[in-house]
Amino acid sequence: MLLADIGNTHFHIYDGASIEHISYEDAFSKYANKNLKYICVNPKIEKKLEQMEAWENIADLLTIQGEYDTMGVDRKALCLSHKTGLFVDAGSAITVDVVKDGIYQGGFILPGLKAYQESYKNISPVLDYPLNTSLSLAHLATTTKEQISYGIIASIKALIDKHSKGHILYFTGGDGKFLANFFEEAIYDETLVFLGMQHALKTTSR
Amino acid sequence: MLLADIGNTHFHIYDGASIEHISYEDAFSKYANKNLKYICVNPKIEKKLEQMEAWENIADLLTIQGEYDTMGVDRKALCLSHKTGLFVDAGSAITVDVVKDGIYQGGFILPGLKAYQESYKNISPVLDYPLNTSLSLAHLATTTKEQISYGIIASIKALIDKHSKGHILYFTGGDGKFLANFFEEAIYDETLVFLGMQHALKTTSR
Repeated sequence: MLLADIGNTHFHIYDGASIEHISYEDAFSKYANKNLKYICVNPKIEKKLEQMEAWENIADLLTIQGEYDTMGVDRKALCLSHKTGLFVDAGSAITVDVVKDGIYQGGFILPGLKAYQESYKNISPVLDYPLNTSLSLAHLATTTKEQISYGIIASIKALIDKHSKGHILYFTGGDGKFLANFFEEAIYDETLVFLGMQHALKTTSR
Repeated sequence: MLLADIGNTHFHIYDGASIEHISYEDAFSKYANKNLKYICVNPKIEKKLEQMEAWENIADLLTIQGEYDTMGVDRKALCLSHKTGLFVDAGSAITVDVVKDGIYQGGFILPGLKAYQESYKNISPVLDYPLNTSLSLAHLATTTKEQISYGIIASIKALIDKHSKGHILYFTGGDGKFLANFFEEAIYDETLVFLGMQHALKTTSR
């Protein structure tokens, strides 16, 4: 079965073994006649998606106890991937969600790594530095460049650590692998959203 | 004695009792013939400042053991205000510095509260929310709006808490009073930079 997680710029298509990241245009032509179950966070292409006869929107199957009204469907899928855990999706924004025994406990949203860097740059050109990807968090930093990288990574880590007690940490998203490096026991898995979709399909027998 | 902390947009002038926040233009005319000792972070007005005969730049007096090359003069002043402490200056950026027995230990830089909000807004219009100033950090949030406010405040707080062990927390800057509310024992004092300038003047007998 083909599953698609449709983001704001690309389709992410999972065939049960690997994930294909593909443009809207390419996805609409390549998969037009394939059976495909999808979730989509971009309301602008909803109408076009509805016209695809072989495609099925399974958003309404994705419900998790404790969810809130405006909770994104991809976030629900992520939270359905494992019964208990702390889930980090590090993309343009970083979403963090806690789930316990299948019940959503809440979470928080931080800017994505790129958005943080843009943010410093917009404050002042003297704060315009690339992220130091080999940063050590062992001690406080003593140069502007290091103090910015430390501020970004250590503040994200400190808040995740605060809420991680007893939970397995699951990371996904474009910066998920990088961020996971800063945690002792973290699992990076780019299929988490698809695992959640599979779980929803299994438990609702559609 | 008049002390001036000259920022990127305004003069902040301290007469030993209260602080006056005043535009460049107004400061240059009102205080032209007054004896005034200043520090300035805006290199663009250096030449103009040097022409003021009654004014003295005391930047070279502001040194703290452990300081780094590009450390801002206002940050040095802040770190000289008390011999030991954690110092938070919450303005367009949020700087956090730790000083122990008069020796600079390092610090970190985060975006200012306004810069955080801009950052979410630039990621997506669905993340464009004002900061909830009556936010509770007692539990994880369950709406997009609350999860953003929680992300901002709780991540700043978590990293400050991590480094606050045994230190008194001193807050200054435009958002300093607001941020200090989230810490049990924090001192908000808008004169900290001036205390540091006074300390430097006293110990160097100029």
